[in-house]
Parts: sequence; C-alpha cells; structure tokens
Amino acid sequence: MSGQGRLYGVGVGPGDPELMTLKAARLLRAAPVVAYFCKLGQRGHARTIIEGFLADGVVEEKLAYPVTTEIPAADAAYHGALTGFYDDAARRLSVHLDAGRDVVVVSEGDPFFYGSFMPIFHRLSALYETEVVAGVSGMAGCWTRARTPITYGDDILTVLPATLDRAALKHHLERADAAVIMKLGRHFAKVRSVLEELGLAARAVYVERGTMAGERILPLPPADFAGAPYFAILLVPGRGRLL
Amino acid sequence: MSGQGRLYGVGVGPGDPELMTLKAARLLRAAPVVAYFCKLGQRGHARTIIEGFLADGVVEEKLAYPVTTEIPAADAAYHGALTGFYDDAARRLSVHLDAGRDVVVVSEGDPFFYGSFMPIFHRLSALYETEVVAGVSGMAGCWTRARTPITYGDDILTVLPATLDRAALKHHLERADAAVIMKLGRHFAKVRSVLEELGLAARAVYVERGTMAGERILPLPPADFAGAPYFAILLVPGRGRLL
Repeated sequence: MSGQGRLYGVGVGPGDPELMTLKAARLLRAAPVVAYFCKLGQRGHARTIIEGFLADGVVEEKLAYPVTTEIPAADAAYHGALTGFYDDAARRLSVHLDAGRDVVVVSEGDPFFYGSFMPIFHRLSALYETEVVAGVSGMAGCWTRARTPITYGDDILTVLPATLDRAALKHHLERADAAVIMKLGRHFAKVRSVLEELGLAARAVYVERGTMAGERILPLPPADFAGAPYFAILLVPGRGRLL
Repeated sequence: MSGQGRLYGVGVGPGDPELMTLKAARLLRAAPVVAYFCKLGQRGHARTIIEGFLADGVVEEKLAYPVTTEIPAADAAYHGALTGFYDDAARRLSVHLDAGRDVVVVSEGDPFFYGSFMPIFHRLSALYETEVVAGVSGMAGCWTRARTPITYGDDILTVLPATLDRAALKHHLERADAAVIMKLGRHFAKVRSVLEELGLAARAVYVERGTMAGERILPLPPADFAGAPYFAILLVPGRGRLL
C-alpha cells in the first residue's frame, strides 16, 4: 500500500470542541484532507466542532446526506439512496488516498458507536491503511452535563433507539438498571408514556444539545412537549449500590 | 462558596494518554491538587495515564482502595470498608477545597460510567462548586482498537457486568443486538458458555488492555482460557442495517 494515503476515522466528541481528544486535534491539524457528514443544505455539527482545528490550505470534503429522516429507514428507497451516497463518498475519498494524501473523516461522538464513519470503514478499510480513533460519546457528554451518574457497580446499561415500538421499549426498559434512549424527535410522547407506565418517569432526565450552545437539561417534560429534536436523549440513571 | 476551591471530576480516557480530551489536559496542567484512585500497593492506570500532564509542584492525593475484588461486593464487610474509605477520601479533598485549592479527581474512562469519582461527587458536589468532564470510555477504546463497529442504525446496545448469573446473562444477551460484557476476570468460562449456547461465540471479540501497552485483541478464546484479568472485556457487535 506504499504511496497511498492513510485513512483515519476520528471521533470529535459530543459537541464542545474541548471534548475532542488530543489525538483528534493532532490528526486534524496535520490533515491535508478532512471529510465530514452533514444534512443537505446545512453545515453539520461535526464541521462546527472542528472549526479552529484545520490546517491552512486543507481540502474539505463535505459529504451531504441526500436524505435523513424524510424517508423511513426501513424503506427500500432510503436504503438505495444511502448506499449510493456512501459508494460515491468512498470514491471521492479514494481519489485523495490514491494520490498519497491522508484523509481524516470526522464523526460526532465515537466513530464506531452509531457512527457515520462505519459505511466508509466497510468500503475502504481493506484497501487503505486505516486507523480509527475513539471519541467521547454524545451520551457521555449528556450525562456529565446533566450531573447524572449513569451506572454504578454492577448496573446493566441499555441503549435504545426511540424508534422501537412500545412493546420493545417496555420490554427492555423493564429489565435495565440504567437506560439511554436516543433519537427522540417525534417519538417523545410514546417513550414518555412507557416510562410513566413503568414508574420510571420521576427518574428520567431530558437532554438536548448536550455540551453545545443552546444546551437544555430538564426533568422529563410533559406528554404534550413538542420540541424534542432528533438528537435529544433521555437518561434513566441506575440506582446500583452507592458507596 | 467564595474562597473555596473548585472540584473537578475528569475522565482521562481508556489508557492511551492521547485519548485524553483537550479539556482534561488543560485542567490537569493547571491543577494544584490531583487525586487518583488505585489498588493498594499499586500505582493505578489513571496515574499512569496522566504522567506527563502534571504541573510542577502539584500535590498528589493517592486514594488507595483498602479492598477491591478480595471480598464479594455484596458482602457487608466490603460495603463498610468502601464507604469508610470514600468518607476519608472526601475529607482529605475537602481540606484542599476549604483552603481555596482546586482539586482534579481523575477517572479512567468516563467519570459517570461506572466511575470511581461517583462516590466523591455524591459526598462533595453539594458543598463545593463541582464540574464533571466526560471522557472516552474504556469500551470505546476497545471496540475502535479491535476494528469492530459496535452499533448500527437502530441497534440496541446492552452493557453487562460478567458478574451476573448465567440466567441473567442469557436473558439479556438473547435480546440485545450488540453487547459489551465487562469485568470478565474469573467469570470468563461462564460468559463464554452462555455465548456458545446462544450462537454468539463466532461474533465475540476479546479485548484486554485496549489502547494500552500490552494490548491483546483475540477472537473468543477457548473455554479453558485462564488469563482474563478483571478489566478484560468481550464485544458482541451488532449486525443492524449496514449501508
């Protein structure tokens, strides 16, 4: 693979640029090419986080999702649009790698925890020397800012997408000591009623834009709360043995 | 609270010092007092990680656990020894805070995810201005080093302590898309047989000392594998929709 550039998948943390790792900052400052994902027509959180860490003359590869939540994820059209998008993104990055330029692909949070880097890793890691750099997860940014220790001792933690149906949410929440419910958005009312039913409502904490400008931390909002964005999360802290 | 020092609970990441956040490095370099937990008679991982980040003349508060795994955690003697230890640790840190000195308490990984800082936070956060700084978790260090993306799309992730009994392990592993099993140590054979029974053995990855010197990453070792230390973990990656 000599002469080729090196591919880096780098977690840049939950939002506050100071929660980036030393390694992420070093790699970004040295990178000739930096790629980031964003919603079509937007700049994206990842690009906002890395502002101030880019080298002069850096080439930026903006990878704008053709769709995000407009089409249900189970839909074949969604799958087709996204696989085509990732194929194309991988080709764009390959051009740089083949020319001997290192490429840093940034992910909010951690690159292997629901990360946007994973489809790129899948397509390119066998072809180019690839290194993945862990980052602080969005949920850790949220629970520390909310002053809510999440797991103690032998607690079981379950991380659930709010997209699950009522029965699945109930099943998992009933058996977890601690839980994080991600991707709230329009699923808030459903999740809230399950927490209520299980007697977990009083323990739940709502966090929006954790560690970022506009951060909001609230006790579980009422059922008619309509403001939850896609990236808002709920925390149900464990109650394991406190010493 | 004017005149008092400020208390910081700071995650220093999974082991590689470069996986510390910029904020952790800044706070450590400025701290007049740095406290860390360790096993009696040892230096501890946290202290090893922060070597090279301490100010000249820093006061180090070494908080050595009187017991770790010698007594079962459910035992009253364990509980008594540990609560007394944390009371004493909190008193030692209070002396500095009352004298107006800021204190940084470091945690491996993240301070609120099974963190050693939590009992200190519980005792002191109402008395002193306190800030908690998220860190890269040990498990994220492990799955990135193992080149094992852990969760895709709408996967459910469950984090389980290996100390659970067979039935509980089986119950949770059966229903998770992705799993992380922590604190393996002498529980390895039990966990392995449950994974085998559920058809998950081929997917499991063993990681020891992830991101540190002496790192070992292996496919699931055989049943008679005797080497798993307390901090070794098993990863069972999700298989959610790959795009």
